[in-house]
Amino acid sequence: MDALEQLRSRMAELADLASVEMLLHWDQLVTMPVQGAAGRAQQLGALARLTHERATAAEIGDWLGELDGAVLDELDRDVVRLARRDWERARRVPDELAAELARASTAGQESWRVARASDDFGAFAPALERNMELARAYGECLAEEGGSAYEALLGDYDFGLRSEELRRVFGALAEALPPLVAEARVRSPARTLQAPVGAQQQAVAATLRRLGVDAESWRVDVSEHPFTAWMGRRDTRVTTRYGDGDVESLLSSLHEYGHALYERQVDPALERTNLGRGTSMSIHESQSKLWENHVARNRAFADVLAAELGAGGFEVAPAELHACLVGVEPSLIRVSADPLTYPLHIVLRFELELALIGGELAVADLPTAWRDGMRRLLGVEVPSDALGCLQDIHWGAGSFGYFPSYALGCLIAAQLWEAMQAELGPLEDDLRRCEVAPIQAWLAERVHRHGRRLDTTPLVMAATGGPLEVEPFLRYVAPLAGG
Amino acid sequence: MDALEQLRSRMAELADLASVEMLLHWDQLVTMPVQGAAGRAQQLGALARLTHERATAAEIGDWLGELDGAVLDELDRDVVRLARRDWERARRVPDELAAELARASTAGQESWRVARASDDFGAFAPALERNMELARAYGECLAEEGGSAYEALLGDYDFGLRSEELRRVFGALAEALPPLVAEARVRSPARTLQAPVGAQQQAVAATLRRLGVDAESWRVDVSEHPFTAWMGRRDTRVTTRYGDGDVESLLSSLHEYGHALYERQVDPALERTNLGRGTSMSIHESQSKLWENHVARNRAFADVLAAELGAGGFEVAPAELHACLVGVEPSLIRVSADPLTYPLHIVLRFELELALIGGELAVADLPTAWRDGMRRLLGVEVPSDALGCLQDIHWGAGSFGYFPSYALGCLIAAQLWEAMQAELGPLEDDLRRCEVAPIQAWLAERVHRHGRRLDTTPLVMAATGGPLEVEPFLRYVAPLAGG
Repeated sequence: MDALEQLRSRMAELADLASVEMLLHWDQLVTMPVQGAAGRAQQLGALARLTHERATAAEIGDWLGELDGAVLDELDRDVVRLARRDWERARRVPDELAAELARASTAGQESWRVARASDDFGAFAPALERNMELARAYGECLAEEGGSAYEALLGDYDFGLRSEELRRVFGALAEALPPLVAEARVRSPARTLQAPVGAQQQAVAATLRRLGVDAESWRVDVSEHPFTAWMGRRDTRVTTRYGDGDVESLLSSLHEYGHALYERQVDPALERTNLGRGTSMSIHESQSKLWENHVARNRAFADVLAAELGAGGFEVAPAELHACLVGVEPSLIRVSADPLTYPLHIVLRFELELALIGGELAVADLPTAWRDGMRRLLGVEVPSDALGCLQDIHWGAGSFGYFPSYALGCLIAAQLWEAMQAELGPLEDDLRRCEVAPIQAWLAERVHRHGRRLDTTPLVMAATGGPLEVEPFLRYVAPLAGG
Repeated sequence: MDALEQLRSRMAELADLASVEMLLHWDQLVTMPVQGAAGRAQQLGALARLTHERATAAEIGDWLGELDGAVLDELDRDVVRLARRDWERARRVPDELAAELARASTAGQESWRVARASDDFGAFAPALERNMELARAYGECLAEEGGSAYEALLGDYDFGLRSEELRRVFGALAEALPPLVAEARVRSPARTLQAPVGAQQQAVAATLRRLGVDAESWRVDVSEHPFTAWMGRRDTRVTTRYGDGDVESLLSSLHEYGHALYERQVDPALERTNLGRGTSMSIHESQSKLWENHVARNRAFADVLAAELGAGGFEVAPAELHACLVGVEPSLIRVSADPLTYPLHIVLRFELELALIGGELAVADLPTAWRDGMRRLLGVEVPSDALGCLQDIHWGAGSFGYFPSYALGCLIAAQLWEAMQAELGPLEDDLRRCEVAPIQAWLAERVHRHGRRLDTTPLVMAATGGPLEVEPFLRYVAPLAGG
């Protein structure tokens, strides 16, 4: 085998191992008996150690050296370019640290699960402390000359983004959103719907089926925190969760569908290469937010959702359902936050994790800092840590630098939606009939097929014709506040 | 780290990877969307290649060399002894062959699934041909001087057993069983029970719960072919299947429970070493057959099963249920065969796979050879390949040399059951009350705790005080034939 073949074969192996790792996580959160957790941590540790060893092996450097200046086709040029970038970053992380990160992540998730159920932050603090220390050590391995550990962590989720850029964008949101929130508070008090779980299950299953979710290549399950896993383009698994007092399942299942569709529509030629997956967390989140905010929360699509709830035995007028789905009300929980206040939840997390990693905030002080932040940014009082700093799994899993992508996803989704409509015309008639083929096709062509070949910033440019902007998102939320 | 630490660390890694591989198989058979099969084959291939590389690495030889003549405690002596044996065997198999075996196994299972559903042997023949060629190549790598490829394949499942021994034991069965079958045909025509699936599900769930199967560390699922998977001692997963026209689920769930209990009761000190699992296929099968033949088919235990079926809404007298569970009738399907005719199904498979691997039987001639064999050994006519040579997954998965362990399991189970009763006294009163703690404890002490420290033959000797014998099994089946 020549150097290119060897490199591509290693990339295929790493893609396979990534799928295996994803299955281990999916199983842990969906099907594993709880007492399997200790064993699963060992298994994930072994896999992470091996993967890290294979991804950082010296022979990759040899192959890359041989390929220096070689004449390659366009696809292989990108394979080599990304292989070089990933290898150089990964080489900076010691094998043992990589394995320890994986072990602590699994243990931290279990600790978080228990602590959250019993509203006991103290029970989680040691695991969080450990995750934080490891993340800091990891960030320090990756930091560029003069850059912070936190900025280095960001690079794992959104290569090429800078914390300065985040400060600018989040600053603009922090300035523009509060007046809209105040306006919404007066004009459009949030409504709730008491849709029985059975009706929601029927509506979720039927709507996803109409969007192309078949049993041959998809699974839909329930887990504590909704997520998506993909073990290849024909094995995609989304989860949701159900509560009697809300219709969050409708939004969350469309949200996860957006993640899944992205991975399924990557160019098949990129499969089992290092390019064959979503390019970044913020682009991924833009895909889930596009389906959540611009499809599920679209007035026209409420016709579809209301009909499916009706088929499940819960009658509701589409307009009433829509009002409920877009109602604005500052609240405690990020994942069920309305589209207007949502980014403020992210601003809080960004500030706190920046301070945690930077060493300016101690773990013990997190609950208080959380309460202060929620009061300041959203004007709400936090009654318990379970509804406060214990609500998200991310820090328990050792993910720092991940949260910002959620807000960036909202912005990019709005920008893509405007670009799509500028090209395809208004989509309301299609949405009323659940006719989403044009949307799927546009996303495949402009976003999905590229896989990792374009990073966040060039992808936004290619798909929308301009750089990342805050305005499309503000145009999207303005009417929600206007009532 | 010294050589012993390094060796033990590698063994722990290999144990973790084996658990991961088992999860991939479990998922494929229980939860994976069918179109995930191609990707899963790649994932299993990558994992097998890596595992093989780590298990055969030259450094293991270095560590073993350093440990030559070292003073070690008893446990570490066994760790080193088995590590040496496994390493020397594995070194004989090229990396690429190991990966190809795994890929062909996954592809073969999918091909088998489709072919069986459509009763189309021709659709399966190419995959079987491929599996057979690979198994032969693999056997040739492992064969001892003067030994056949088939005997070498046996060594993977039951180290230390010889095909000569199999011929002797199976010869004795082939001689002793047919007269009993003829007697049974006259005296005790098999009875069937039409127990609704719902009642069976309730009985299976309740009985397993009474045997200690809790949701915290077990799963019970449905799959096409019942099997057991273990991802560590606290994550054990059994499957069964349900049909309206039989109560096979009661037997199959107890059968799988026996496999699972074995793995769960291995000495915790052996966990994540190379000794921490069941020692051989025939000993494993003796554990499943003990619970299937000697517990589930015990007249006293029929009280338990009948009560649980009754709780599920299906009333049946224990005596009638028992008569159904022990009814003898030559039939087409191995897994649902009665305990008397069962070993004859194995004799057939042993003959055929011996001939396939030996090159004396062509794949294309298998269906005819199967029909001839069933006529000769069991006196039944095979109406379709789906009910004939397509009924078992094993050859589709590339497992040759595995079938004999099923019959050996029956013999060893009977021998253990006699030894247990000789020591504990009659167990009928306990079984009537589903009081199985003494049985579990005896098995833990005599069989389970040893893990791989004793091979099949010395384990039988240690547990029963004598060598493998056919007579206890014949004493067990004689009354079944007597009616």
